[in-house]
Amino acid sequence: MEGNNVQLIEQRLLPHKFEIFTAKNHNETAFAIKDMIVRGAGAIGATAAYGIAQATLEADESNFKEYIWKAVETIRSTRPTAQNLFTGVNFILNSIKDLEDLEEIRKVAVEKANEFADYDADACKKIGEHGNSLIKDGFKIGTHCNAGWLAFVDWGSALSPIFTANRAGKDVFVFVDETRPRIQGSLTAWELQNENVKYAIIADNAVGYYMKKKKIDMVITGADRIVVNGDVANKIGTYEKAVLAKENGIPFYVAAPTTTFDMETENGDGIDIEERHEDEMLFIQGTDKDGNVDKVRVYPKGSNVKNPAFDVTPSKYITGFITEKGIIRADKESIKKLFER
Amino acid sequence: MEGNNVQLIEQRLLPHKFEIFTAKNHNETAFAIKDMIVRGAGAIGATAAYGIAQATLEADESNFKEYIWKAVETIRSTRPTAQNLFTGVNFILNSIKDLEDLEEIRKVAVEKANEFADYDADACKKIGEHGNSLIKDGFKIGTHCNAGWLAFVDWGSALSPIFTANRAGKDVFVFVDETRPRIQGSLTAWELQNENVKYAIIADNAVGYYMKKKKIDMVITGADRIVVNGDVANKIGTYEKAVLAKENGIPFYVAAPTTTFDMETENGDGIDIEERHEDEMLFIQGTDKDGNVDKVRVYPKGSNVKNPAFDVTPSKYITGFITEKGIIRADKESIKKLFER
Repeated sequence: MEGNNVQLIEQRLLPHKFEIFTAKNHNETAFAIKDMIVRGAGAIGATAAYGIAQATLEADESNFKEYIWKAVETIRSTRPTAQNLFTGVNFILNSIKDLEDLEEIRKVAVEKANEFADYDADACKKIGEHGNSLIKDGFKIGTHCNAGWLAFVDWGSALSPIFTANRAGKDVFVFVDETRPRIQGSLTAWELQNENVKYAIIADNAVGYYMKKKKIDMVITGADRIVVNGDVANKIGTYEKAVLAKENGIPFYVAAPTTTFDMETENGDGIDIEERHEDEMLFIQGTDKDGNVDKVRVYPKGSNVKNPAFDVTPSKYITGFITEKGIIRADKESIKKLFER
Repeated sequence: MEGNNVQLIEQRLLPHKFEIFTAKNHNETAFAIKDMIVRGAGAIGATAAYGIAQATLEADESNFKEYIWKAVETIRSTRPTAQNLFTGVNFILNSIKDLEDLEEIRKVAVEKANEFADYDADACKKIGEHGNSLIKDGFKIGTHCNAGWLAFVDWGSALSPIFTANRAGKDVFVFVDETRPRIQGSLTAWELQNENVKYAIIADNAVGYYMKKKKIDMVITGADRIVVNGDVANKIGTYEKAVLAKENGIPFYVAAPTTTFDMETENGDGIDIEERHEDEMLFIQGTDKDGNVDKVRVYPKGSNVKNPAFDVTPSKYITGFITEKGIIRADKESIKKLFER
């Protein structure tokens, strides 16, 4: 955050083009979250926290409470499934709720947004260290969507153990799911390439093929929300990979900081699943022959599509959670204990 | 077939543009199969049969045997997984093997190629009738890839029961898998739209989501090869859908004429799986803003991809086969009996 501005990597253009998007007020920040200029559980959470901090800078004495509540509503309504968003907003609200002086509120809100982002970065680093203990030299690892440093403030969740293992000199290879419709696999591939990790992008359809051929030793994904009984909402397709992993006896881990846990929802049935715009299915972005970012319409006008953005993976398919506080089993008891630490 | 020419729908341009491709000799026919101008089990089989017929028209007395064997080799090497291709080639070879007179050979070869194509069309119609008996009014049906009339000479395999049910006035809805990398879901959607069947295209990642929500009553796919024990090679991703269907208690049927059965291979381990060019993953075709067919590069230069075109679904995940001779269970015994009829 610079003055009133929140600066974000324009992820909609990656991996084709690197640009910074500047959100000059909380409404632009909300737009950035909704339109996926910024995406990924942790990054959304930190951005939402900064959005509330922005709102405190914009509001004045006369309309303060009203203004903040409207901002909270705007930001909360951007992405209904992402728990970090709500955690981030609540963290700032709780920090300022007993304060009266506007200048102090503003100062604390900005400080706390920074603290929230720093916590996330630190948590991801620790996730890397814990997760690394599960990775053996020579492992081939499957992942889904992008849960690397683009998705968080630093390091990432699912990719953090892989980066850590690679930096520690282990030989690792990553099967990168393409992740239609938004093809976040291209972000994961871009991050892995930058870190010199070996990888191959595969169609979402090909994951089962490689699992059945025993080419995948473990799977690590991120999470958008983990509820009390260990059910996980994550990018559409995660459920498919988890079922296939179990069928083939492959450990399936979900890496997420505690800020992704929603301790107010009992099980996956209570998670609101975001349906996104059909254009995400109808059009695909890439570069044209001159290297310019362009898109093509894949399905003719009048085609019918459905586009659920997330699914829920029941805890029975999940081997464990890799958190900043350690690796735990995906059950109610273990999660409860995690929050008592 | 018109004179020496084989005329094919240019499927690489569909659903954006309807064009006819004319293969003027067997080499062009082989190219059309390899490059997927023509695709789909039955259509490949009939085209391969016509390719051999073309070769008999091209060869002369002096080099006949040599020329034909080279043509057979060329055509057989186009798509290693597709059984109908081999069945089609063998059907023509067997028909002419005892003939001596060149004019008679040519006449028989063309006649037999027509007969093979007609058999396929008739088989698909019967598959529709048998398959229709499984479809209840109000059913929501999942499918993968395109196994409609584009993929066969007429009617199609997997879509034939759906067309038949729809024409019989049943209310049916189809969940159309996108089917990356080649997005044959767009062909299926196009066929369904033309037949006024309700459908929605979904990401391959979203199939499990709708299955878990009990929105899918049954799945019907086609097959590229079915072997002695009932294992099925079909478009990459079929295995994933079959595992998910079983996990969710949803019947999973494979519709295929007997020309797709390979009675010389004992089980799925013996099936050669085609790896196709990485460009199928790297580029995606669609239409630009002016409606012209164009493509974009989805992954930057230097990206690593893998592109297996098929997978093998073990018979234990398959509820049954819908053939022109009736519906049978997916086991060795039932398949053996099918070929004794």
